[in-house]
Amino acid sequence: MDFALPGMLYAKVLRSPYPHARIVSVDTRRARALAGVRAAITGADLPYLFGSAVRDEPFLARGKVRYAGEPVAALAAISEEISREAIDLIDVEYEELPAVFDPLEAMQPGSPLVHEDHTAYEMEGTFTRCTGTNIIGHTKLRRGDIEQGFRDSDFVFEDIFTTQYVQHCSMEAHVSVAQVATDGAVTVWSSCQSPYNLLRDLSKALGLPYSMVRVIATGVGGAFGAKMYLRSEPLTVALAMRTGGKPVKYAHMRDEEFIGAVVKHPAHLTVKTGVKRDGTLVARKMTAVYNTGGYADAGPQVARNATFSGTGPYRIPHVWIDSYSVYTNNPIGGAFRGFGVPQATWAHESQMDMIAHRLGIDPAEMRMRNLYDLGDSTCTGELLYTSVGVKDTLRRALAVSDNATPLPAPASPKLARGRGLATMHKLTNTPSNSSAIVKMHQDGTINLLCSSVELGQGIYTVYRQIVAERLGVPIEHIRIGPADTHYTPYDQSTSGSRSVFHMGNAMLRAADDLAYRLCVFASPLLGVPVEGLEFRDGGVVPTGGDRLITAKEIIEKTFGARGSTVQGEGRFAPPGTQPPDKETGQTAKMSAFWMYATHVADVEVDVETGQVKVLRMVAVHDAGTIINPDGAEGQIEGGVVQGLGAALCEEMLVRDGIVTNPSFAEYKIPTAMDVSEIVPVLVEAPHADGPYGAKGLAEPALAASPPAIANAIFNATGARITSLPITPEKVLQALRQIVK
Amino acid sequence: MDFALPGMLYAKVLRSPYPHARIVSVDTRRARALAGVRAAITGADLPYLFGSAVRDEPFLARGKVRYAGEPVAALAAISEEISREAIDLIDVEYEELPAVFDPLEAMQPGSPLVHEDHTAYEMEGTFTRCTGTNIIGHTKLRRGDIEQGFRDSDFVFEDIFTTQYVQHCSMEAHVSVAQVATDGAVTVWSSCQSPYNLLRDLSKALGLPYSMVRVIATGVGGAFGAKMYLRSEPLTVALAMRTGGKPVKYAHMRDEEFIGAVVKHPAHLTVKTGVKRDGTLVARKMTAVYNTGGYADAGPQVARNATFSGTGPYRIPHVWIDSYSVYTNNPIGGAFRGFGVPQATWAHESQMDMIAHRLGIDPAEMRMRNLYDLGDSTCTGELLYTSVGVKDTLRRALAVSDNATPLPAPASPKLARGRGLATMHKLTNTPSNSSAIVKMHQDGTINLLCSSVELGQGIYTVYRQIVAERLGVPIEHIRIGPADTHYTPYDQSTSGSRSVFHMGNAMLRAADDLAYRLCVFASPLLGVPVEGLEFRDGGVVPTGGDRLITAKEIIEKTFGARGSTVQGEGRFAPPGTQPPDKETGQTAKMSAFWMYATHVADVEVDVETGQVKVLRMVAVHDAGTIINPDGAEGQIEGGVVQGLGAALCEEMLVRDGIVTNPSFAEYKIPTAMDVSEIVPVLVEAPHADGPYGAKGLAEPALAASPPAIANAIFNATGARITSLPITPEKVLQALRQIVK
Repeated sequence: MDFALPGMLYAKVLRSPYPHARIVSVDTRRARALAGVRAAITGADLPYLFGSAVRDEPFLARGKVRYAGEPVAALAAISEEISREAIDLIDVEYEELPAVFDPLEAMQPGSPLVHEDHTAYEMEGTFTRCTGTNIIGHTKLRRGDIEQGFRDSDFVFEDIFTTQYVQHCSMEAHVSVAQVATDGAVTVWSSCQSPYNLLRDLSKALGLPYSMVRVIATGVGGAFGAKMYLRSEPLTVALAMRTGGKPVKYAHMRDEEFIGAVVKHPAHLTVKTGVKRDGTLVARKMTAVYNTGGYADAGPQVARNATFSGTGPYRIPHVWIDSYSVYTNNPIGGAFRGFGVPQATWAHESQMDMIAHRLGIDPAEMRMRNLYDLGDSTCTGELLYTSVGVKDTLRRALAVSDNATPLPAPASPKLARGRGLATMHKLTNTPSNSSAIVKMHQDGTINLLCSSVELGQGIYTVYRQIVAERLGVPIEHIRIGPADTHYTPYDQSTSGSRSVFHMGNAMLRAADDLAYRLCVFASPLLGVPVEGLEFRDGGVVPTGGDRLITAKEIIEKTFGARGSTVQGEGRFAPPGTQPPDKETGQTAKMSAFWMYATHVADVEVDVETGQVKVLRMVAVHDAGTIINPDGAEGQIEGGVVQGLGAALCEEMLVRDGIVTNPSFAEYKIPTAMDVSEIVPVLVEAPHADGPYGAKGLAEPALAASPPAIANAIFNATGARITSLPITPEKVLQALRQIVK
Repeated sequence: MDFALPGMLYAKVLRSPYPHARIVSVDTRRARALAGVRAAITGADLPYLFGSAVRDEPFLARGKVRYAGEPVAALAAISEEISREAIDLIDVEYEELPAVFDPLEAMQPGSPLVHEDHTAYEMEGTFTRCTGTNIIGHTKLRRGDIEQGFRDSDFVFEDIFTTQYVQHCSMEAHVSVAQVATDGAVTVWSSCQSPYNLLRDLSKALGLPYSMVRVIATGVGGAFGAKMYLRSEPLTVALAMRTGGKPVKYAHMRDEEFIGAVVKHPAHLTVKTGVKRDGTLVARKMTAVYNTGGYADAGPQVARNATFSGTGPYRIPHVWIDSYSVYTNNPIGGAFRGFGVPQATWAHESQMDMIAHRLGIDPAEMRMRNLYDLGDSTCTGELLYTSVGVKDTLRRALAVSDNATPLPAPASPKLARGRGLATMHKLTNTPSNSSAIVKMHQDGTINLLCSSVELGQGIYTVYRQIVAERLGVPIEHIRIGPADTHYTPYDQSTSGSRSVFHMGNAMLRAADDLAYRLCVFASPLLGVPVEGLEFRDGGVVPTGGDRLITAKEIIEKTFGARGSTVQGEGRFAPPGTQPPDKETGQTAKMSAFWMYATHVADVEVDVETGQVKVLRMVAVHDAGTIINPDGAEGQIEGGVVQGLGAALCEEMLVRDGIVTNPSFAEYKIPTAMDVSEIVPVLVEAPHADGPYGAKGLAEPALAASPPAIANAIFNATGARITSLPITPEKVLQALRQIVK
């Protein structure tokens, strides 16, 4: 966000070095005394709580800190240099408290409590809190009779899988600017995914009318879930409330992204699966524990997704799943591309491979036997009535990867090659709604108003395509500006792969509404009743006729040469959705749509060093009708690379609550040299409710890669890795276990 | 506009010192060579023409300059200091051309032509151009039989009146910032009154789709007509097209406001009036010549207003009016509060007083005899079917000024006291249309979207009042943001006193539309058909019932706890308006509404020095229903002071095309010490088509003051001044003429 305002001040934040400590005192006097410092605040100044699911987080720590990295004091000065100098002049005295870092320990009675009474917080959602414990979210799925299911099975396998801390590593770190007007209205410019989430959460926290808070989502340099909720904004706003109208900017340094932003939840998943001898799945019991850290943020909803996608895209009659979002004194686990599903996919797709091998069945064959078909019901009782392309993703993946042909032999005997596959499904934010305005100028060209955010995923191009197609207006004549909650209508968020489906539908409806309004204006001009008119190719045509009046002519003849604007409005909320039952997770419609994918990984393992190289990733996705093939392939490629990082090298190390590698020097993301050949393939199973049949795509490309890679390593070497990331050390250890 | 963007460059403009000259050469090489200069342009670079009525004005002079002050070259540099230094390094060679400054001379055959062939320009409007002359706009009014009218009259009087150059003197000078995106889209932040005028004119000039030009009207520090059309913006945009995406700011220095912005047209008005012995008006012939200067800008429309308001608010059966907008080599005459009407009012109200005295009739009595009543037809053939409060303004003015009681005697025999009055009417921009969006957030609070501009006139408060009243939402919950043509719907402009009436109506309709939509959402929640529901007091009520659901509950029950926004849209174009016939000026409806006013001035004249002091101004206005009494009184007070300046002290002196007093040291505006007692009075004749019966108010307060003052001077001393401003020299000269 290369953005500045006249007179802008620069904020810095002092963060706790302790994971759990009582704040004995905070003294900002020395900092305030430094020339150029304009405001300095502590938790004592800010009696506000925010949080999208659970309102548990203070703007600055009050009374105690709950994770190392928690903001304790903040200040704003006329330059970055001065604020950096001043922040070191703030004196804080802490008294350390017993801490808990492991979520399994944190769930036990007698564990130190991160929040003494979390039931006192406002909350929202279909999860359950467990009073007197660190469990802030528990979600249940109950279907069939799980014990009967295991009794009916020929084999029952129980395995444990774990995932690590991953940081989003957006090119652009969290950054926001806030300014407070003389009437108390707050404007926030933010690199964010969900301006309306921010608006809502800020308004509620501050007790301001929504109309007095304005969030402008500037161009965003990557988000991946990290920018869904408030993070830097409460601090810029709180400071801006004390600067007499001067704007305040706060931009995270890279280390603050690791210690003070949100990270991907590490998860501990115990999966017990009953199968028939022929590979038919009969029963699945799963317990998923997500380490949510010091504050809830999106934790309860992230963990909830593990519940509802825990079976994978397979028919399983008897299911019992519990997932838990657990407070610990660790950094905050938040939303991350896939929103809890990649962790579950890692577990069920690894185990699927393990079971197939245990039963001596081809892993692809075993999946094919169990995968959803049109007309099946999911584990939550939802009838799959449209767009079930999952078997096609598997078939195409096998074909494109040339699965029938063995991999060519490696160059050296110390190298082993193998192939693995993984299939997955992903739900989207449900229920949620989107609104759009298609605004036509006098010359027939168009501005689009919506609160979707362009994060680099190319969503604005897709909206322009949809409207251009519907109205017959050249795409070059359609422009879309940034989301701004003062002007642009509601959208839940740019997340969950939901934008093409939800906002795309809203755009279509808005375009139709505009077309109808233009027909109404054209009717008296053409002397034809509006029922006899339609809008196409940028103008109005009498049905069956060929006389055409352009949009420009309609507007200028109706409103005069100085013209006017005409706008259409559209809103979309997916039909038939219904929140799941709290005790059983059952619902007639869990998700507005389901996405499906199969990845096939070819890998080469150096059995002497444990180094794994991915040779090729075939990534086949059913995202419904594809509106922008280039963009879709780009999404898959980006997701595969991010999945590669999660599979092989990325891990934020946290020892006793302290992040030990908060920099790109120590935290390894894949470079161009690490990227394999990627073969994106699009299987289009049109969705009955999607715009032109489209669904979504952004998240699945990440989730299927790690298990496909792990399964390929097993195929190459017989070594099974159940814990992410798959480091050379773990590979060597697993190879040694085979030898034994 | 205290506005800056990162990397912003600062523009300076080189202006012609000659009123009419051929440009032999412009050489920017030395300026470009200066370190820190980023772009330098001349007319040769810019083959674009702009102009709202006549597309006659280049971004920078091409081939020749037409007034002293015309931009010839412009540059942008990294600091104001460098651009100031660089501008002196531009070398221009001129060859002077014969010039014409007096519009009466300019109308004569054989006069030098300011534009060799103005018929080559695109134009728009209901005026006529006279080929081969300097007359760029001629408007006609023909009603009855003018010669028969004079024959039917007992007396015919012909008098000539003139007005001077006045500058708007907004606190904030013209200023804009432009930035060009990589896709070529242009964003302009401007201190302007008419973002959509700017958008349209820029798009047309540059050949860009409207959707690719975005005009944001920032908070404006006064406008008074000067900021209706493009002025600084073409230069910032042209420079920004050459800076690789860096924004460019150009702010007028105060002297540029005088020489390079627009000024109030000086007018020369010949008024010939036939009357019956009892004061009944029978015939009016008028020729009005407006000195439009080097480019048309709003000239043709400003002069047009003199035609259509030239009779004053009086019944006159025989009328023949011609008004002319004439090119000269003088500064550009533009829009100024009253848009041509104050000049005409000066003429007809001065002459009305002169005729009354000549006939020996009380001036108030003579006016009362001729003033419009409901059911009368105007000189353009319009039936006055609603809101004709003009007689009431006169009655109230006489009562409030205590007209029956003579003024107390002055303190010294060298002081003479007198009282004078003037009555006037004012039309508004017609036809024109306005659109608004009333956008409700989940918590029931509201943002208003419109393209009206807050100029200090308080219009945003009025809109908030209107919507608060209609929906029963507290005004503190309603916020309105700046006009932004990307987001906010069309409005013609913030001018002509049109905003309360036009946009107020659009706001009402948008509020009604929102109310209806909320009823639609409430219907299934309440189990009541939508026809049985209404919205009031911030919620929906079944007709005749008392059960109430709040807007917040409706939205949250319809869209879930994460909510949505709901918006209503309203548009208003006044009914029945019709452009006047080009040859006769006749139309069934000339103006969406008419405003009326009577001012009574008490003055004291120092007969030794000629100094005039206004003791009191009673200003009675019929603006229809008043929505914000404080704001309305403030408008009147400001207008009276501006009228005081125009009457007594303000005059931009132009000698042979050169402005000789382009600063506040030499150009005198009234100070707090000069301001008399002002008694604003509001007569409310509700308008059938106005929002809650409101009309408009901004302009009339200016127009009625100068003739009231002149008439009071006559009443005090017998001296008649027919030429504005009424300087002490003119008073002394007129006094000497009486003595003779």
